[in-house]
Amino acid sequence: MIGGGQGAFIGAVHRIAAAIDQQVELVCGAFSSNPQTSLASGEELYLPPERSYASFTEMVEKEAQLPLGERMDFVAIVTPNHVHFPAAKAALEAGFHVLSDKPATLDHAEAIELKKIVDKSGLIYGLTHNYTGYPMVKQAKHIIAKGHIGKIRKIVVEYPQGWLATKLEDSDQKQAAWRTDPKRSGAAGCIGDIGTHAENLAEYITGLEIKELAADLTAFVDGRLLDDDGNILLRFNNGAKGILHASQIAVGEENNLNIRVWGETGGLEWHQNEPNTLLVKHLEQPTQIYRTGHGYLCEAATNATRTPPAHPEGYLEAFANIYLAFSSHIKDRLNGEEKDSYDYPSINDGIRGMAFIEATVASSKNNATWTTL
Amino acid sequence: MIGGGQGAFIGAVHRIAAAIDQQVELVCGAFSSNPQTSLASGEELYLPPERSYASFTEMVEKEAQLPLGERMDFVAIVTPNHVHFPAAKAALEAGFHVLSDKPATLDHAEAIELKKIVDKSGLIYGLTHNYTGYPMVKQAKHIIAKGHIGKIRKIVVEYPQGWLATKLEDSDQKQAAWRTDPKRSGAAGCIGDIGTHAENLAEYITGLEIKELAADLTAFVDGRLLDDDGNILLRFNNGAKGILHASQIAVGEENNLNIRVWGETGGLEWHQNEPNTLLVKHLEQPTQIYRTGHGYLCEAATNATRTPPAHPEGYLEAFANIYLAFSSHIKDRLNGEEKDSYDYPSINDGIRGMAFIEATVASSKNNATWTTL
Amino acid sequence: MIGGGQGAFIGAVHRIAAAIDQQVELVCGAFSSNPQTSLASGEELYLPPERSYASFTEMVEKEAQLPLGERMDFVAIVTPNHVHFPAAKAALEAGFHVLSDKPATLDHAEAIELKKIVDKSGLIYGLTHNYTGYPMVKQAKHIIAKGHIGKIRKIVVEYPQGWLATKLEDSDQKQAAWRTDPKRSGAAGCIGDIGTHAENLAEYITGLEIKELAADLTAFVDGRLLDDDGNILLRFNNGAKGILHASQIAVGEENNLNIRVWGETGGLEWHQNEPNTLLVKHLEQPTQIYRTGHGYLCEAATNATRTPPAHPEGYLEAFANIYLAFSSHIKDRLNGEEKDSYDYPSINDGIRGMAFIEATVASSKNNATWTTL
Amino acid sequence: MIGGGQGAFIGAVHRIAAAIDQQVELVCGAFSSNPQTSLASGEELYLPPERSYASFTEMVEKEAQLPLGERMDFVAIVTPNHVHFPAAKAALEAGFHVLSDKPATLDHAEAIELKKIVDKSGLIYGLTHNYTGYPMVKQAKHIIAKGHIGKIRKIVVEYPQGWLATKLEDSDQKQAAWRTDPKRSGAAGCIGDIGTHAENLAEYITGLEIKELAADLTAFVDGRLLDDDGNILLRFNNGAKGILHASQIAVGEENNLNIRVWGETGGLEWHQNEPNTLLVKHLEQPTQIYRTGHGYLCEAATNATRTPPAHPEGYLEAFANIYLAFSSHIKDRLNGEEKDSYDYPSINDGIRGMAFIEATVASSKNNATWTTL
Repeated sequence: MIGGGQGAFIGAVHRIAAAIDQQVELVCGAFSSNPQTSLASGEELYLPPERSYASFTEMVEKEAQLPLGERMDFVAIVTPNHVHFPAAKAALEAGFHVLSDKPATLDHAEAIELKKIVDKSGLIYGLTHNYTGYPMVKQAKHIIAKGHIGKIRKIVVEYPQGWLATKLEDSDQKQAAWRTDPKRSGAAGCIGDIGTHAENLAEYITGLEIKELAADLTAFVDGRLLDDDGNILLRFNNGAKGILHASQIAVGEENNLNIRVWGETGGLEWHQNEPNTLLVKHLEQPTQIYRTGHGYLCEAATNATRTPPAHPEGYLEAFANIYLAFSSHIKDRLNGEEKDSYDYPSINDGIRGMAFIEATVASSKNNATWTTL
Repeated sequence: MIGGGQGAFIGAVHRIAAAIDQQVELVCGAFSSNPQTSLASGEELYLPPERSYASFTEMVEKEAQLPLGERMDFVAIVTPNHVHFPAAKAALEAGFHVLSDKPATLDHAEAIELKKIVDKSGLIYGLTHNYTGYPMVKQAKHIIAKGHIGKIRKIVVEYPQGWLATKLEDSDQKQAAWRTDPKRSGAAGCIGDIGTHAENLAEYITGLEIKELAADLTAFVDGRLLDDDGNILLRFNNGAKGILHASQIAVGEENNLNIRVWGETGGLEWHQNEPNTLLVKHLEQPTQIYRTGHGYLCEAATNATRTPPAHPEGYLEAFANIYLAFSSHIKDRLNGEEKDSYDYPSINDGIRGMAFIEATVASSKNNATWTTL
Repeated sequence: MIGGGQGAFIGAVHRIAAAIDQQVELVCGAFSSNPQTSLASGEELYLPPERSYASFTEMVEKEAQLPLGERMDFVAIVTPNHVHFPAAKAALEAGFHVLSDKPATLDHAEAIELKKIVDKSGLIYGLTHNYTGYPMVKQAKHIIAKGHIGKIRKIVVEYPQGWLATKLEDSDQKQAAWRTDPKRSGAAGCIGDIGTHAENLAEYITGLEIKELAADLTAFVDGRLLDDDGNILLRFNNGAKGILHASQIAVGEENNLNIRVWGETGGLEWHQNEPNTLLVKHLEQPTQIYRTGHGYLCEAATNATRTPPAHPEGYLEAFANIYLAFSSHIKDRLNGEEKDSYDYPSINDGIRGMAFIEATVASSKNNATWTTL
Repeated sequence: MIGGGQGAFIGAVHRIAAAIDQQVELVCGAFSSNPQTSLASGEELYLPPERSYASFTEMVEKEAQLPLGERMDFVAIVTPNHVHFPAAKAALEAGFHVLSDKPATLDHAEAIELKKIVDKSGLIYGLTHNYTGYPMVKQAKHIIAKGHIGKIRKIVVEYPQGWLATKLEDSDQKQAAWRTDPKRSGAAGCIGDIGTHAENLAEYITGLEIKELAADLTAFVDGRLLDDDGNILLRFNNGAKGILHASQIAVGEENNLNIRVWGETGGLEWHQNEPNTLLVKHLEQPTQIYRTGHGYLCEAATNATRTPPAHPEGYLEAFANIYLAFSSHIKDRLNGEEKDSYDYPSINDGIRGMAFIEATVASSKNNATWTTL
């Protein structure tokens, strides 16, 4: 693991997600750019001191020298955004598979470059767009793929949060600090941090691509360096239209990633906040409440669930589903049983995300002119 | 009453709204452009045949000849849009107050003209933007006016319906026919029919005005002459940003006018579908569920309710609140007790609505260029 | 109208319910046992002074002397409970149809007696168990009658309110005063006031009868003379089991009449609080959300609705449905077109309600012994 | 681990719950009464064959011979009910702490006996009444303990499920088979399996004890040997009244453990189905929506959460909270830092549960006579 030392948020999430299905074991880490913090973090995680490294370069180098079967199988990257690319590059070039937090890189050019590195390496690269790990998201994708709601016409995806409604970055809040800092977060704030999740979710569920967009980004909090709110018109490659809006200044909102999709003969609605429910709408019949865990769900949804209906699984289990699919890929390759495809986000999703960020920022600078991805 | 004969929708709604509080009595009507239909409609409504008129011109003329106290007090206009202006003009010029269905007129120029006529007449003119009649909408307006959620930053108002997802206008559906016909409906379809309600609701609740907008309208159903879907970016006169989207092709949606408003210190959320609930959000405290009928509500909300909490009042009662405020105005004037203001939409709301439609259509024709209202 | 003068609650509800469909006109009243109040109330309601009577005996006597076509068609009784019987008796014996607020009488013996009077008179008697007027309640009844959820096994009906959580009857609250007074309310408080609505709803929807019950009633508020809370086990005549609980001390609850029914192959769930939704549950398929106003509903539900889906109709419209069915019955009889049955509660419902109250009180006095209705 | 081999349900849940916080490692198991199954199960769990035992007696014996630090620290019992007591007894007598699935034993006498064994051993015993592990359940307990809703008056706790609506035990469904078998499940079916969870939840949240109850149990499915539905009146030791109903034949219900509590000045409502929300009700103020993860929650709720608001945690995390508290107790004892109390269910909860089952069954046999716990 690279990053995720004391005081971090997403590192702990990754460790739980890895632990849930008992298929992945944490064996080493470079948990912080500060060697002392890295060592202390490793101790808390019951690691032997020699496998808590002072830097990711040291880690990939030393681990590569360990015998097969003893060294780590893959690297999880859970740092602020600006480290994603160099860490992934180092790991891949040292021969390790990579599972990276999103966004894949700091900018679009890096993402293109990273894809070349991945392709060249022949190694496995995954990206934790974790919201696609939910069973009902997979069910939604299935329903659309089967044509059950007809040709898609309209998509509304939204992601309001409220935690940055005040200037939290001026306090001692580590998360707020780096996420509002262009050097560590990238060209966008809110749109990079959570807008990309919304973009990825919309494209994952519908199988469509955003063709062009018109964006109006705002930094509402005085003195903030990056956008904390964005409203975006979307046009998709099949002629569908849509809206994506995201915010981190929407007071009272928690983490409300929501999506509604309407096709010619039906509609879908899903709220991350209540993730085990999927509303399925019809032309002239009652709306149906699909729920996690039932026998009527598709295989992908069923495989992404561990318990019966209304034993609610949530964010951590959805995240674990990414780990499970990714680690299955590694395991299958080790066993010579690799399948054609695995259900976790790839470097291509990473490139789409970075293209989305760049187009959004560019459009907004041009007063919401339509901009192609 | 002008319009609202057999087979019409909104006329019956107006009659119920007028009846609920037992302050208004239907005394005459020109219910249809077909004299026979008008007469038959009047009979069903227990009117004497001599007061079911063949046309609105006949009605205003003949009623004006009746003695005071016997003739109608005001005219309710419930026709398709293209008749709103001529009917209102005729009534006002004959000396009758007017309560008109929305939109006020067929286009913006007519609305400006109508305001001049209203002003010149000195008579009372109301517009049934009925959704502002809900108690919790009034409570939302109160909370914002009192500054309880701080300066407004973001507004998301949406109005998805699904009833025009197929080409209903080709069947024998009267409502679908005129609402998708530019001659009778105006320059916009969905945006004129329901988008204006969303616009009016947002401005009513927040007290702000939309300054400019960027709109992407679509007619998804093949061969449809007017938009059946619209996605719009908004900028308000105080610097707030927003989104308005409306649709009539959102399969499975009924009549889901929803609004969310976020200010610097709080937020509000209201759904017309469950109109007696208002969510009030705070920076670091639990969200509160405000409910119709409680002692903690503002005076305007309290006055707009007839029953205790959870004796749910709905669409018809909200509509009746417009009638009640409008008829109180007339009564107070008759009694020489006119107040400074009454809580029903006026010709100014009508002008805003027509400006909104024109700006939206113009922006969309210019590929969503920002357009000033 | 008998009762319903200034300061009353249910009288105003009846007047609105009667007005909504414009089929019933208020022509006279004995609005209060105080002649001055009756007169003043009549004036507010635009009645001529000679038709605001000093007592219900005066009213039925004088109205009976008016010519047919001029005198009232029926009497609406909206007094406290102890007046229901004598008022109904007087009206029926003077030849007037009666629509009475519930419960039908003060005790079970009176109800039996009243049925005899009704039968003897040949007149029409209705009882405003208004919650059966909701479209989705009618849909629920239809689904069960059609066998769509199989033989009924379990029924949970509940009615928590919170408005009597403190000793409101000691303040100047007229409603609280008579409803907690055995002389005016009858043998039960909460169970008589709202428990009977729950009983009636369960029997109406399922078509079953409560055979026996075991009840535990409590007066939680110190010094209160009647129960303000009750928990009851139910056994139905088909072998189904159930629970009925009602409360007026459930702080924070408004008027939450809820019912769930489970049969061998499906289930139903309805909440008065959100009355336009009915959940329909199935053995191995997603739950469906039935909603008012759609084409897939049964005829009785459709007839009980005035507007399209999500133009929410509520308590007053449901109440109006009782008035509409009752007044249609009168009209049809006048026109010689009487049908076999009409969908409004009858004196038999009144008798069931009084039997329920007596059994509940008796069971509770015997420490929740099973007691037959 | 004792039990939880291939095809079991709750064993896998325990393993995930243990893994989530990375404080507990599975080191050995007697996963099945069939030695082959036990061995195969252990292999799937990456255990060395020598630590997959053929029986729990073998396991406790052999593990006790391993050196400290190498042998297991505690035993998790996840078998059908009839094995809980002998397994716990064997483990405790061999010197191992025990964490047992509920109910603690097969009957009340065993539970009393088990408490003696626990007390004598001086070892740590925990019981996985997992629903008390939810953060909002802890918040509810806190609010009541602080007196924020006043003296408790009424409690309604319910647990409808639908999975046994048909005779599933006749198919090849292992869970259905043992849970409907008196020999393996105990004297009650539904009431033992899930009624005890409801009982435990009510007592945990309120701090009250059920003093007596009147129960009506039914086996609705023909030929079923144990109750699949129960309706129970409750009286608590402080004078509060209540209702507990549970069902496994409520078609369409998943796992809907719900509780509502009303005190003199407020109320609480929690649904396991949407576990991160707690409704807090007040006498004359809007209801509040408490949500997991916020700064305004009590310490116990905060400690039971891993992620920010609306990163929904669910059933597995709540279960993990029991494991975390239990394993902290062991760790603290090992470190000589034992605290006065730990927040996980104990043998006393186990005894209450068995007393509840016995009283319920006895009451029901006596036609719902009041029966003391």
